[in-house]
Amino acid sequence: MINKKMILVNRPTGIPEKNTWSFEEELISEIKDGQILIKQQYISLDPAMRGWMNNSKSYIPPVEIGTVMRAGTVGEVIQVNNNTNFKVGDFVSGWGGVQEYSISDGKNYSIIKDKNNPIHRYLGALGMPGMTAYFGIINEGKIKSGDIVLVSAAAGAVGSLVGQIAKIKGCKVIGIAGGNEKCKYVKEQLGFDEVIDYKNDNIYSSLKKYCPEGIDVYFDNVGGEILDAALAKLRMNARIVICGAISQYNNTSRTKGPSNYLSLLVNRATMKGMVVFDYKNDYPMAINQISEWFNQGKLKSNESIFEGIDNFYETFLKLFNGNKRGKLILKL
Amino acid sequence: MINKKMILVNRPTGIPEKNTWSFEEELISEIKDGQILIKQQYISLDPAMRGWMNNSKSYIPPVEIGTVMRAGTVGEVIQVNNNTNFKVGDFVSGWGGVQEYSISDGKNYSIIKDKNNPIHRYLGALGMPGMTAYFGIINEGKIKSGDIVLVSAAAGAVGSLVGQIAKIKGCKVIGIAGGNEKCKYVKEQLGFDEVIDYKNDNIYSSLKKYCPEGIDVYFDNVGGEILDAALAKLRMNARIVICGAISQYNNTSRTKGPSNYLSLLVNRATMKGMVVFDYKNDYPMAINQISEWFNQGKLKSNESIFEGIDNFYETFLKLFNGNKRGKLILKL
Repeated sequence: MINKKMILVNRPTGIPEKNTWSFEEELISEIKDGQILIKQQYISLDPAMRGWMNNSKSYIPPVEIGTVMRAGTVGEVIQVNNNTNFKVGDFVSGWGGVQEYSISDGKNYSIIKDKNNPIHRYLGALGMPGMTAYFGIINEGKIKSGDIVLVSAAAGAVGSLVGQIAKIKGCKVIGIAGGNEKCKYVKEQLGFDEVIDYKNDNIYSSLKKYCPEGIDVYFDNVGGEILDAALAKLRMNARIVICGAISQYNNTSRTKGPSNYLSLLVNRATMKGMVVFDYKNDYPMAINQISEWFNQGKLKSNESIFEGIDNFYETFLKLFNGNKRGKLILKL
Repeated sequence: MINKKMILVNRPTGIPEKNTWSFEEELISEIKDGQILIKQQYISLDPAMRGWMNNSKSYIPPVEIGTVMRAGTVGEVIQVNNNTNFKVGDFVSGWGGVQEYSISDGKNYSIIKDKNNPIHRYLGALGMPGMTAYFGIINEGKIKSGDIVLVSAAAGAVGSLVGQIAKIKGCKVIGIAGGNEKCKYVKEQLGFDEVIDYKNDNIYSSLKKYCPEGIDVYFDNVGGEILDAALAKLRMNARIVICGAISQYNNTSRTKGPSNYLSLLVNRATMKGMVVFDYKNDYPMAINQISEWFNQGKLKSNESIFEGIDNFYETFLKLFNGNKRGKLILKL
């Protein structure tokens, strides 16, 4: 059997170029004692991957040059060599990376027992983006019924769930997304109360219109000017959850800091960073809850699925050019 | 009797110019039923006053054009007209503004009963700067013994107390101040563990030297590049208390936002704004505690006292040109 894989060969500055990775093929060797062989079915593409490519201190070590590009995956166990935790035919989720097959001792994989959800949802609403949305808005944002919640990247994998969960919890939710089509989706399909098109609307005046009383919670996926606009509209004791800053990930100059940060002082507000891994002991509880919301028809998810490891590079770029909706996935 | 007073007549852009205020004299009229007349002895000069002059939404309304410049004061009651809460000879602290006499119904004044402390200390360690330092580092910074605490404007009215309180509570304290003389004072007189001279030292490499393990709490009075340097050295679950941003108050361009704010995410850290007025119900408790520390010789305070209301303008500028130490006070 041949494994096709994407190896990180150059650390990018700015938007990754094609020569950031090298596409390689290798013969799959016999798996060793205790190992399992997984045929990967779906690869998760996440904005965070851009950060993992920088050689700087962060919440996990950078991907090393010469190794398979790190990515979350789901797949099927097709060989087991003396490992009692897995059997052939198990579906698993884990960190398989951007390749067609992965070999592991199984430590970073969990078996998906659930038959009610499509397997690729374990990369989206039941995977890292779902966990990020759930713990981010509930535990970090500390939402309560009646709060006014603003969410950026509202049509994205995390933002779309953040807003829907806040609605379930009784909040008024305003989304920010780019372009008419996404905005329509956010309001009509996902049920946000209001949506602001950052490509065509003035964010400051739209916020004035949709939440004249200000914002209790801002869930930030983007940073930049949108973070500044949110800061300018904080209510007393507001919370800003810093989940990401996609507008800044490909910067070649210094990150744009939030000029309006002194609004934190005026409004006794809090800005706090979160990393979803801190909640890993509570993932099963959140997966059950999100799964239940799906069964009850209270949650919708959306995946943009593209096919073929050969198309990894072009698909990856869709994370940053806005050319996708919901969770971005590569199908093998 | 003639009252001399400073009236705000122009809203400044950048550093206030002399024509920001107009110096006026008026004959003091008879005080009305229920009023008291206070002969002011000391006027507090605080960086926050610069913010109160801007016509923008903040934690208190701006000083109105044509009114006496707002300032904290201490003085002596010299006339009482049918007000049982005060008697002639009482020493009071309150918001008398930049003038020699003030007339009030007494609502914003408290009587100073304490005879152990010099009266002007009620504008410093036992006044707003002391309350800010106490609640800022204890309630907002949530310090615990062993924490590594960084304080900017360490020779200033608030910073000097923040660092000393953190030392009392068992923290390792690093101060940042400008110039050799101030730094010597901070380390030798105030007992900080280390001090960084931002005018002569490289802040990043000094932080690396003095706290290689990083910072648990940063108490920020200054904003700008120093806030960025602190963000770059945060430890896991660190807290940044935003008390002020003196480096930005006279900006004529946009406030410099903290470029390194994504360190909040990497380190699951919190940046929170504080306004001391929120703690006003607990001021008496904090005043007792600070007073006790003075009696025990555990705290030192320092005041830069200048004389004469005619010198208000030149004295006020010392807040921003660094040409003072500790609490800046105008004596009448």
